[in-house]
Amino acid sequence: MTNARAFEVNALKADLSAFLGDRLSTSQAVREQHGQDESFHPCAAPDLVAFAHNTDEVSRIVKACARHKAPVIAFGAGTSLEGHVNAIMGGVCIDLSQMDKVLSVQGEDLDVTVEAGVRRRQLDEYLRDTGLHFPVDPGADATLGGMAATGASGTTTLRYGAMRENVLAIKAVLADGSIVELGNRARKSSAGYDLLHLLIGSEGTLGIITELTLRLYGRPEVEASGVCAFDSVQNMVDAVTLAIQCEIPLARMELMDELAIYAVNHYAGLENEVAPTLFLEFHGTTASVADDQQRFADIANELGGKGFRASTSPEERKKLWRARHEALYAAKALNPGKKGLITDVCVPISKLAQSIADTRKDFDEHGILAAVVGHVGDGNYHTTLWVEPDDEAALKTAEGAVKRMVERAIAVGGTCTGEHGIGIGKRLFLQQEHPSAMTMMCTIKRALDPDNIMNPGKVVEV
Amino acid sequence: MTNARAFEVNALKADLSAFLGDRLSTSQAVREQHGQDESFHPCAAPDLVAFAHNTDEVSRIVKACARHKAPVIAFGAGTSLEGHVNAIMGGVCIDLSQMDKVLSVQGEDLDVTVEAGVRRRQLDEYLRDTGLHFPVDPGADATLGGMAATGASGTTTLRYGAMRENVLAIKAVLADGSIVELGNRARKSSAGYDLLHLLIGSEGTLGIITELTLRLYGRPEVEASGVCAFDSVQNMVDAVTLAIQCEIPLARMELMDELAIYAVNHYAGLENEVAPTLFLEFHGTTASVADDQQRFADIANELGGKGFRASTSPEERKKLWRARHEALYAAKALNPGKKGLITDVCVPISKLAQSIADTRKDFDEHGILAAVVGHVGDGNYHTTLWVEPDDEAALKTAEGAVKRMVERAIAVGGTCTGEHGIGIGKRLFLQQEHPSAMTMMCTIKRALDPDNIMNPGKVVEV
Repeated sequence: MTNARAFEVNALKADLSAFLGDRLSTSQAVREQHGQDESFHPCAAPDLVAFAHNTDEVSRIVKACARHKAPVIAFGAGTSLEGHVNAIMGGVCIDLSQMDKVLSVQGEDLDVTVEAGVRRRQLDEYLRDTGLHFPVDPGADATLGGMAATGASGTTTLRYGAMRENVLAIKAVLADGSIVELGNRARKSSAGYDLLHLLIGSEGTLGIITELTLRLYGRPEVEASGVCAFDSVQNMVDAVTLAIQCEIPLARMELMDELAIYAVNHYAGLENEVAPTLFLEFHGTTASVADDQQRFADIANELGGKGFRASTSPEERKKLWRARHEALYAAKALNPGKKGLITDVCVPISKLAQSIADTRKDFDEHGILAAVVGHVGDGNYHTTLWVEPDDEAALKTAEGAVKRMVERAIAVGGTCTGEHGIGIGKRLFLQQEHPSAMTMMCTIKRALDPDNIMNPGKVVEV
Repeated sequence: MTNARAFEVNALKADLSAFLGDRLSTSQAVREQHGQDESFHPCAAPDLVAFAHNTDEVSRIVKACARHKAPVIAFGAGTSLEGHVNAIMGGVCIDLSQMDKVLSVQGEDLDVTVEAGVRRRQLDEYLRDTGLHFPVDPGADATLGGMAATGASGTTTLRYGAMRENVLAIKAVLADGSIVELGNRARKSSAGYDLLHLLIGSEGTLGIITELTLRLYGRPEVEASGVCAFDSVQNMVDAVTLAIQCEIPLARMELMDELAIYAVNHYAGLENEVAPTLFLEFHGTTASVADDQQRFADIANELGGKGFRASTSPEERKKLWRARHEALYAAKALNPGKKGLITDVCVPISKLAQSIADTRKDFDEHGILAAVVGHVGDGNYHTTLWVEPDDEAALKTAEGAVKRMVERAIAVGGTCTGEHGIGIGKRLFLQQEHPSAMTMMCTIKRALDPDNIMNPGKVVEV
C-alpha cells in the first residue's frame, strides 16, 4: 500500500472487514496473486482482496467502495490475457472463485444457472450425466463469470457461438451497489434495451456479473476429429469458406501454420507434414457426420488438401489432434524463461489469408519467431511473441509487430481483438477501430459509473 | 398541427425545407399515413414528414430537431405492431423507405451491406442468383432497418437466430445528429462495449439506423416441409423439446392450435384434422434432410404425433403449409370490420404448453374467440383479439386478457414480448418484467438523448 491513493485504504478496510472478517485479505502474496492475469502486463496489486460468497456480499462491497470512491475489480480465475484484472489504480479486488455453485439445471429448457465463480471444466463435469453440454471453450479453465465479462469465445464459436450468444441472463452488481437482473430465460425477447449484451464483454467496467444462466446443447451422438494439410493458407481458407457456404455444420476448424507445426513436431516428436494444417471436428449423428466428412473431403480435394483423414475413435481422435493440443506447450518449451506477448485479431474471412501472410512477412522482416494458430472459420487468429523478461529492445520490437498486425486488421474491416478483449493492452487500438463509437462508450461509462470506480483504466478512459 | 407543441413547428419546417425541398411534407394524408403502424393504436400524426436519401441527410434532420428540441421518429414500412411509429408527441417523421439500395454483397464473407429502407423481400430477390439468403422472416415485408430497430425475428429463429444474431454492423445517427458506426464485419469481436446490440431493438429511441451489414447463409441444397397433428399441445411441445435436445437442425417449427386450424379449414375449405398441429421445415442436403425427417418422425410417433408427412416437392410443400400461410387471412375473414389486438409473449419452453392452456382457459372464460399460433421451438406464441372498432367494453375485455397473458408469461420467467417489441403498447409490462433494469435503461436513455427527442414516449418514459 505504498502508492498514493485517492481514497482512505484503512477506513475502507475497516468497513469491509466488519462483515467479511478473515475473508478480507491484505497479505502481500494474496494481493500480488490478484494483481495480474496470464498476460505479460506487470503485476499491479490491489490494496485489499475480498472473497465474496454471494451477490449480496458483492453488493455490500461495491457499496463500500462507492462510498469511499475506491476502485473495485472482479477476479475469477485470473486467466485473462490483456491485463483485465491488474489493479492499476489500487482498490479492492473481489475474488468470486468461492461463488462456485451450479444453482440449477433446467434440462427441458436447455439452460443452466450458475454462480459466476463456476469454472468451465467444473460445469462440464457437472453436466456429464445429463446428456447436455456447454460448448464455449476458450482453452483456459476460466470462470464462467469471467468468460461472460470478457466476451470470451474459442474453438467452437463457428458452430455454437461465443459467450455473447450463449448467456441468456445474468445477475450483476452496478457501480452504486444495486443488483440488476438482465436478460431472460425465454429464448428470445424484444423487451427493452439489450443491457445483457452491454454487460457481456464490458470487462467489469460497468458492473460485476455474479450469476449467469447459460444455454446448453444436447451432446452430439457422434464426434469425429479430422486433420488436413494444405499447400497454402489461402487454399485452406478457400476450403473453409466453401465449407461454410455449403452449410457443413463443423464444430471446430483450427489452423496451425507451418511454424506452429514445425515447433510441435520438434517438441512432441511428431511427424506431421510441415505445412499449413487444418484441424476439424464434426458433431452429429453417425449418418450426418459421415456425410459431412465426405462433403468436406470433396472440398479439400478440390483445393489441394493433402491427406485428409478423420476418425470417431477416441484414441484416433486424440492422435489426430495431438499437434493442436500440444501447440501452446511446444511454443513455451521452445522459449524457456521468456514471457509471451499473446495477441489476437479477427478479420473478415476474405481477408484472412492475406492478413496471415502479411503478419508472417512482418515477423520475418523483424526477426520474430512466432507461430500462428487460429479459429479459421471465424477469421480469428492468435500469435505469441516471446521475449526475454528484461530485454526492453525485444519487447519494443514485439510491441511494434503487434501494433502493425492490429492496424492491418482494422484497415481491412477487422477488429483489434476477436476474443481476448481490451483490458489495458488494447485501449489505443479500440480508439483506432471505433473512433465514432468511443464518445458513446464514454458517455455510457460516465452515466453508469460516474465516479469511475468499476475496474478503472480498462476498456475506456474517462 | 392543432396540438400544442413544445417546439416551433414553423421554424423547424423552414430549417428542414431549406435542404429537403419538396421531400418535406406537411400534407395531412402523408402525415396520417406516417402516424400509425399495423397495430390497433390510434393514429398520432407527426407534424412533418421528411423523406431522407442518405445518412448525411438523416444527420442534418436530427441536428435540426435537436436544435428545436423536437421529437424525431424513424419510419420504414410501418409494419410494426405496438405503435412504434405513432408520433404521440408530434415532431418530425423521417421516412427511410427511399434509402433502398443494396450497397454491396460480400459473398466470400457471407454478408451484405444495405441501406435501412431495403425491404426483406427486395433483398431476397436481389440475392436470388447468388446462392445466398438472409433468413430472418417476421412475416411482414418490413424494412431491414425497421427489423433491426425493433429486434425482429420470426419463423426461422430456431435455426438462424433473430436480427440480434444476424446484424454484424450498423451506421446510425444519434440524438445530437452525430453519425456512429457500430459492430464489425469480422465474425466476432471483443473490442469494447457492445453498442451494436444496444441499438438493435431500441426502437429508434437511442438512434436511427441508416445502414446495416447482415449475415448471409448458403441456400440449402434441399428444403422439405412437413406437418404433424398431435393429441395435445403438451405432446407437441414435448416432441419439439426432444427434437431440439437431439440437435435436429429444424429450420422452422410452427404451432397452430385447434381453433386456428378450425378457422383456416372453414376459410380455405381445407380438411386438416382439428387438432394442435405442427408445421415443420427442414434445410440441408438430400441425405441430411432425409435423416432429420426420419429422426423427427420417430420422436413424433413416440409422442402421439398423428400422420406426420413431409415433402421436398415445391407443390406438395405449399399444400402441406397452406393452413399456416392462410392463418392470418382466415382470422381476418372471420372477423370482418373488426380491429385486431395482436400480441405475443415468449416463455421458457418447459412452460409453453401450460402457458397456452392457461391463455385458452382465460379466453374461454371471457368469451374471447382468438386462435393461437406460435414459433414453438422458441417458446414464442401470438394471438390476435378481434374487437369492433367502437366497442369500448370489448376493447377493455381484450386488453384485460392480454394483460393477464403477459403477466402469466412474466411470472414463469418469460418475457412480455418475444418479437414485437415495446412501442407504446407494452411499456407498463416492461416495468413489470425488468423492475431492476428499468433504472439502468432510463439512465442510458437520458445520457444518450438528454432532451428526449428520439421517438419519445416509446420503450422507456424519462
